[in-house]
Amino acid sequence: MTAPDCLFCKIVTGDVPATVVRRGERTVAFRDINPQAPVHVLVVPTTHQPDAARLTAADPALMAEVIADAVAVAEQEGLAGTGYRLITNTGRDAGQTVFHLHVHVLGGEGLGGMTGGPLKVAG
Amino acid sequence: MTAPDCLFCKIVTGDVPATVVRRGERTVAFRDINPQAPVHVLVVPTTHQPDAARLTAADPALMAEVIADAVAVAEQEGLAGTGYRLITNTGRDAGQTVFHLHVHVLGGEGLGGMTGGPLKVAG
Repeated sequence: MTAPDCLFCKIVTGDVPATVVRRGERTVAFRDINPQAPVHVLVVPTTHQPDAARLTAADPALMAEVIADAVAVAEQEGLAGTGYRLITNTGRDAGQTVFHLHVHVLGGEGLGGMTGGPLKVAG
Repeated sequence: MTAPDCLFCKIVTGDVPATVVRRGERTVAFRDINPQAPVHVLVVPTTHQPDAARLTAADPALMAEVIADAVAVAEQEGLAGTGYRLITNTGRDAGQTVFHLHVHVLGGEGLGGMTGGPLKVAG
């Protein structure tokens, strides 16, 4: 099931072009057009769910498939030895801009802190 | 199954104290001792697996439970309306320091970029 005005649904169907790096049975992985690291790929389910809460409630097995495919992308991109970060953002404070669940796969350099703010060290 | 020298296994068993905020059937959630945001909770499976790749390969349903519990923690912490970020780091470049799979739940303020570097905007 797709949503009519959803950018990522249109990438899934091919109506909007993207650099697809992997297709699973129910997932698609493509490069972020605004990469925040040398490797920055997004993994999405082919069915439309807005965020982690909704996808996990609707189909937890599919959430696990998205994570498994994110790991597979990281390995395919050569990050297994050096490391990688998987992120899913929900809502305003996290900076979610497309409301179709996606997991970011980031790597290829030291990634530093997990937010844009300064690393907070316990004093 | 626990690993003898694993800090998070010791938190699971209670041998190391932590501020536990939620217990699932096969998961435990506790506050990060070095919080990077107003809310910073870690969700771990009670069984030892070093990272997302190993946990997902060994027990994908448990990976889904960890994500579902991370969502539940976010809701319990009052982040459902404002948003939150879920992260799991693997290996050196991502800054993983404890090799027992954990999902960070971050929120309570605008989180900015997904790495410690400057936000990269497509030019």
